[in-house]
Amino acid sequence: MRDEAQALLAANHSFYSAFAEGDVGRMENLWAEDVNVACSHPGAGPLHGRSVVMQTWNEILQSGGAPGIHADDAKAVLLGEAGFVTCMECIGDARLVATNVFVRESGRWRMVHHQAGAES
Amino acid sequence: MRDEAQALLAANHSFYSAFAEGDVGRMENLWAEDVNVACSHPGAGPLHGRSVVMQTWNEILQSGGAPGIHADDAKAVLLGEAGFVTCMECIGDARLVATNVFVRESGRWRMVHHQAGAES
Repeated sequence: MRDEAQALLAANHSFYSAFAEGDVGRMENLWAEDVNVACSHPGAGPLHGRSVVMQTWNEILQSGGAPGIHADDAKAVLLGEAGFVTCMECIGDARLVATNVFVRESGRWRMVHHQAGAES
Repeated sequence: MRDEAQALLAANHSFYSAFAEGDVGRMENLWAEDVNVACSHPGAGPLHGRSVVMQTWNEILQSGGAPGIHADDAKAVLLGEAGFVTCMECIGDARLVATNVFVRESGRWRMVHHQAGAES
């Protein structure tokens, strides 16, 4: 169980690395393909479906992404073949609250939902 | 699958009913007991652990809750024994973006994580 929690936290870390580096290919590879995915960007309602969600990430990353973004205080909760991580997203002095939901596909954790929003 | 998605949406609906009615007993019963639970209330960082999360719900509901709160545009995604719902929380003219994560315990969907935050 500890190993799986570590793997889940590593997947969460990879998400923020791809985000910080503006790496579209890694970002696309991080997201699940066998189930419907969803995403709520800060200040926006939920989006559903891989193509629309990936389109937003492409736009965000290709317009510069969020250099230096990283997760603080990440905590993982395992739910069998799914799991989620809560963390604070730190971008400079800004801090956002995030939920990242993952699912196991072919033995690795892939993101199926992301919500980030203002802490206050 | 459609039945399970409907059951997941029904659990999400029950959460907002208990919230609107300020029903502490139903709220406590809605939350999972076999796994760690988490919660990010609007404008606050994530909390982990059933006792601390339930304490916040008791305080919110006992101070009046959110009469009239209801979910709009709820969409469910199934992940085996887990699943999540995205929706908009409507309270009067206010709208919040929410993610609600559930897990199956003894055949019913129980909440394991809730994040709500401002739409804009």
